[in-house]
Amino acid sequence: MEIKVLKNILDANNQIAARNRARLDAQRVTALNIMASPGAGKTTLVVRTVQGLKEKCRIGVIEGDIASTIDADRVAREGIPVVQINTGGECHIDANMMSTALESMDLDKIDLLLLENVGNLVCPAEFDTGSHRKVMLLSVPEGDDKPYKYPLMFTIADAIIINKIDTLPLFDFNMANFEKAVRGMNPAARLFPMSLKTGEGLTEWLAWVEAQARRS
Amino acid sequence: MEIKVLKNILDANNQIAARNRARLDAQRVTALNIMASPGAGKTTLVVRTVQGLKEKCRIGVIEGDIASTIDADRVAREGIPVVQINTGGECHIDANMMSTALESMDLDKIDLLLLENVGNLVCPAEFDTGSHRKVMLLSVPEGDDKPYKYPLMFTIADAIIINKIDTLPLFDFNMANFEKAVRGMNPAARLFPMSLKTGEGLTEWLAWVEAQARRS
Repeated sequence: MEIKVLKNILDANNQIAARNRARLDAQRVTALNIMASPGAGKTTLVVRTVQGLKEKCRIGVIEGDIASTIDADRVAREGIPVVQINTGGECHIDANMMSTALESMDLDKIDLLLLENVGNLVCPAEFDTGSHRKVMLLSVPEGDDKPYKYPLMFTIADAIIINKIDTLPLFDFNMANFEKAVRGMNPAARLFPMSLKTGEGLTEWLAWVEAQARRS
Repeated sequence: MEIKVLKNILDANNQIAARNRARLDAQRVTALNIMASPGAGKTTLVVRTVQGLKEKCRIGVIEGDIASTIDADRVAREGIPVVQINTGGECHIDANMMSTALESMDLDKIDLLLLENVGNLVCPAEFDTGSHRKVMLLSVPEGDDKPYKYPLMFTIADAIIINKIDTLPLFDFNMANFEKAVRGMNPAARLFPMSLKTGEGLTEWLAWVEAQARRS
């Protein structure tokens, strides 16, 4: 019974997600769905990406949080359009929330849309929002065994950022073991070792995002 | 419609949780539900707690993960009974999974039961497992703003551990701001600043756990 309910919800979600994607395609907007645990660096990634690319393409941001506008306030300081979704307890952004957020954006004036999902390594992986690319961050302090424990997220990601590599000397994080684990479940994903604090690895990431934005 | 389904699921969960708690009470077992983001230090906390208290009380562990037995293998090396729950995608341990795990444990031979929940700062907070105390860990690299973004978890916790305080010089984590945020939503929670790496703060934690275990 419960499984059936879940299946119906996911089917409905996929239909709305497909409509969102068609709408973004019609407006030539590329959307990235950015997912990670709490505190991995999602908002900093959004801010650095906006700073790095806002002269090259027109960017909009959707901030998803259970509560608060802390992240939206921070991103809005970059002078770009930002919409905040407060999920009111829900652990992920679904396609319906995304659809509502799209209503509030002037898509004519955007080339690249960054969606920052709720901080959660589990549920957001299950819900298509209508984005074109799924991006996930893992930060070094979280540990190199996470692909084995949260396999769906690592399987569905088009790009995987390993953030906070400036702290590698402090933590028992074996990059070779991590890459081996990821490659076993997702050979095609692009990997970006990065420190959003020092800027290391940011150039490669910005080039990848720009290439996605020019896709349409 | 969806809200009604969710309410029914939560009602059913609460009934099973109450049965689990009654069963644990009858056997004089105290159960702690340990919750945190991925990589905050849950398994290390379990291992250190077992090492610190296993001469004083008989401990059992339930390890909850979406997939893998990495954590259960690690805890089993301490020579105590361990049951692994693989949720197969579910983002939290519910009371029914807890009930099944309790079937596999010889509760006659246990005083203290440690449940390590799935790594997730959202969903586990919504599901009572039948534990007596809810414990959450936040690690310094995750940031001091997390109570505002994940308020339910910080509101329901009886004890809040701030782990990895040895890394405070590296991260922008303001302990006074964090405590203020927590106190605003949960004045009664015990706070334990801790480094499971250096052992700082562990003595206070072990004393608290021992006091809970002698409650019955």
